[in-house]
Amino acid sequence: MVKQLVVNTPGQGLHEITREVESLVREAKLSEGLCTIFVRHTSASLVIQENADPLAKRDLERWIARLVPEGDPFYTHDTEGPDDMPAHVKSALTATSLSIPIVGRSLALGAWQGIYLWEHRRRGGRRELVLHIGT
Amino acid sequence: MVKQLVVNTPGQGLHEITREVESLVREAKLSEGLCTIFVRHTSASLVIQENADPLAKRDLERWIARLVPEGDPFYTHDTEGPDDMPAHVKSALTATSLSIPIVGRSLALGAWQGIYLWEHRRRGGRRELVLHIGT
Amino acid sequence: MVKQLVVNTPGQGLHEITREVESLVREAKLSEGLCTIFVRHTSASLVIQENADPLAKRDLERWIARLVPEGDPFYTHDTEGPDDMPAHVKSALTATSLSIPIVGRSLALGAWQGIYLWEHRRRGGRRELVLHIGT
Repeated sequence: MVKQLVVNTPGQGLHEITREVESLVREAKLSEGLCTIFVRHTSASLVIQENADPLAKRDLERWIARLVPEGDPFYTHDTEGPDDMPAHVKSALTATSLSIPIVGRSLALGAWQGIYLWEHRRRGGRRELVLHIGT
Repeated sequence: MVKQLVVNTPGQGLHEITREVESLVREAKLSEGLCTIFVRHTSASLVIQENADPLAKRDLERWIARLVPEGDPFYTHDTEGPDDMPAHVKSALTATSLSIPIVGRSLALGAWQGIYLWEHRRRGGRRELVLHIGT
Repeated sequence: MVKQLVVNTPGQGLHEITREVESLVREAKLSEGLCTIFVRHTSASLVIQENADPLAKRDLERWIARLVPEGDPFYTHDTEGPDDMPAHVKSALTATSLSIPIVGRSLALGAWQGIYLWEHRRRGGRRELVLHIGT
């Protein structure tokens, strides 16, 4: 089964989508299976991270912003703004697709794992994800 | 269904394979499904990136070459040449497998997404990919 | 089919799990299929790397330790120790899930590829992986 999931991001950062994905998985009513999430953009990506302390999320965002700074004169692809090429690099370093097993109609996530859409553009926007849920 | 895809890379860089993967997916004639691409090497990897402005591709290649420079005296694994250990690091930071949903016999890629085999060795070579296409 | 795999890691580093995964794949007796490995933690991850020269493995560990140093005063999430936030960053930069095609009841790995659980915490521990094996 293939489902679309649209997420409107208000701006850069980790936006949790665990509940939305879980909800689509429950609808599929599979006792066992695999859920694959795919993001249809090159300036947003996926990451599974700790969902307990919000500082962990913030440190991760700050860390990658330091590794791939905006406005670096190094870039030649700059017609779409100073945050565009860094967004492509950050996407390449993280995940465009993620697969999570399904057990008992639910995602087999660990106790502290949350699924995040990582928005890399300052302005955010409408982001399309496609989910495949199979046996 | 499992299919092999062989790509001969002329040297370092992003080599687009979208058309070759799409062609194998069309042959499978699945109205819905999942296509997984796997690269059988530790010095080449996979990335989904913007296929519009070639400068984006070039900046991404230059950026990772700056992050993981060749000839760094830091490396002790150097018997296969100065580009070999950096190739392993670059592969670890990007993807060895990628999964893309299939909708209407076609990959559910975004408008600006292309699939690339990222060759990390200077001399390039014969690269084997394995595709799994399932429901 | 979904299977659990528990790995006890003695400490930081790449711990090969190829044999354990192959063994579960063989039990499934599938002539063709796909094996997906998922790690249920945010301070350990997955990587496919060269299994020939142990120096390659060591250089990779040293390289990421240099990129994401422990005890960096930059971090604000530090209640779980100086190796915790770097562990989250390293996990985000590598893989939480990996999918490998199955051909002839065996993983379609390249000649030099090994599957590794990458432990990022100093003390290591009991790590849970979930495998999905399907057609």
